[in-house]
Amino acid sequence: LVFSDKRFFQTLPVMAVNSWLAEPIKGLLLDITGVLYESGEGFGTAIPGSVEAVKRLRETGIPVRFVTNETCATRAELIKKLHHHSFSVSEGDVFSPVPAVISLLKERGLVPHLLVHPAIECEFSGLVAGNPTCVVMGDADEAFSFANMNVAFRALKAMEDPKLFALGFGKYYKHKGQLQLDVGAFATALEFACDIKSEIVGKPSPLFFDAALSDIGITAKEAVMIGDDIVSDVGGAQKCGIRGVLVRTGKYTRSCENHPTVTPHFIANNLSEAVDLIIEAQSKNIHQV
Amino acid sequence: LVFSDKRFFQTLPVMAVNSWLAEPIKGLLLDITGVLYESGEGFGTAIPGSVEAVKRLRETGIPVRFVTNETCATRAELIKKLHHHSFSVSEGDVFSPVPAVISLLKERGLVPHLLVHPAIECEFSGLVAGNPTCVVMGDADEAFSFANMNVAFRALKAMEDPKLFALGFGKYYKHKGQLQLDVGAFATALEFACDIKSEIVGKPSPLFFDAALSDIGITAKEAVMIGDDIVSDVGGAQKCGIRGVLVRTGKYTRSCENHPTVTPHFIANNLSEAVDLIIEAQSKNIHQV
Repeated sequence: LVFSDKRFFQTLPVMAVNSWLAEPIKGLLLDITGVLYESGEGFGTAIPGSVEAVKRLRETGIPVRFVTNETCATRAELIKKLHHHSFSVSEGDVFSPVPAVISLLKERGLVPHLLVHPAIECEFSGLVAGNPTCVVMGDADEAFSFANMNVAFRALKAMEDPKLFALGFGKYYKHKGQLQLDVGAFATALEFACDIKSEIVGKPSPLFFDAALSDIGITAKEAVMIGDDIVSDVGGAQKCGIRGVLVRTGKYTRSCENHPTVTPHFIANNLSEAVDLIIEAQSKNIHQV
Repeated sequence: LVFSDKRFFQTLPVMAVNSWLAEPIKGLLLDITGVLYESGEGFGTAIPGSVEAVKRLRETGIPVRFVTNETCATRAELIKKLHHHSFSVSEGDVFSPVPAVISLLKERGLVPHLLVHPAIECEFSGLVAGNPTCVVMGDADEAFSFANMNVAFRALKAMEDPKLFALGFGKYYKHKGQLQLDVGAFATALEFACDIKSEIVGKPSPLFFDAALSDIGITAKEAVMIGDDIVSDVGGAQKCGIRGVLVRTGKYTRSCENHPTVTPHFIANNLSEAVDLIIEAQSKNIHQV
């Protein structure tokens, strides 16, 4: 028996039967903010090792899609920011809630009242004519003012059949070094006030993960999602049958490791570490074939 | 058989067995804002007939307590406002959340971070020294800014055992002619973001109704609560075994009449109408004795 013996590698999956790496990984879904870079003034700062990690994934040929709830910038601006940090990402690889909700509004013939970040209002031009028949809420940041919350609330109260679309449903995220409340918290406030439930467009909606999987052409079992949000990224992916990896960057806090309902398949210090393990495991899986 | 015949009055309770007026009413709990007056600039405006209704209650000797979730003014300022409109109300008759939460904080030795209306911050002087061990949220009105919500959120995240006290839990109320979001909506947002439940001090907490009943010295079955909030006033009272009457003033909207979970014992056009019916029924009950 030598270490390069084929039998040695064949025993590996048995040894690691409970490991998140045991089953082949045919595609990766990556969160952007808090995984690739930390948000902040201007372009924010790239998380050490993340640019190289994405590069290594490209080199090994493991398909990657970027699944983000980012709604503080247009997709074009987001790509510009990623390119500034030298991330190898093209617009077609990014799945974000705004194009998804726009399709949905057109499909259903709905007129939105917007409670979104001013930077993305332009994306809805042409859709906001007439009396609103739904409210669309993104991460509005500073625009989550008392006045704007009340205007959205009154718009819902005035609708015969009030509809609320939430672009993601995060609890909070890290911004300029501090945690701040995300769209999920403010959507919950309107849900409570109006006795309604929001329809989530973005993570953790299964439809959203499915769109990215279909684009790669793989099943949920063949994919791994890597994110810094224990609920939206890890829990959301796991509910679809996708393995969920949490990174200790972005909005991560120690309490995430003892979350009452979500246990990640793995917790990595950062994207780079997770990617190294995945590439190593895949190379071993290839040896088995 | 004549109409003044005692037998006629004796049959009344049987005829009206399902009526909210059938059982004797030995005390009344009244909401203030939206029942006595509509809030607005300055002192707001008294609701037509309400001043006289309270006067009639005083004359008939039916005990009255005022059970309010008002936290935009000190109790002294509230009384000043009521006296401006000639309401016959003394400070001892008013049950409001601020004195209740202050007792509770002292009892438990808690240091509050305040997210309350600036007008009532003074009431907490002497309690806010040191690192906060809880957040106290009232109806902060304009102070429910994105910045203040985030500061309260971070205060909770920094606590080992985060505690949130909500001074009432209303969904919304009418202010300057428009509906606006109340403390319950913003408390729900922090509950969601921090995975906690608030402790409610005020309506619909049973402890709060009980305090007013004890003060009169009657049981829940002997009392009627009159309010404009279908959930906090009517639903809250009913959960304690108090009859709940909704008025079509204040924050009332037509949809309250088809509320999914709360059915009022009676819906009156206003306080005056409810009080007239109560006084009439009581005079008949007295005839029976």
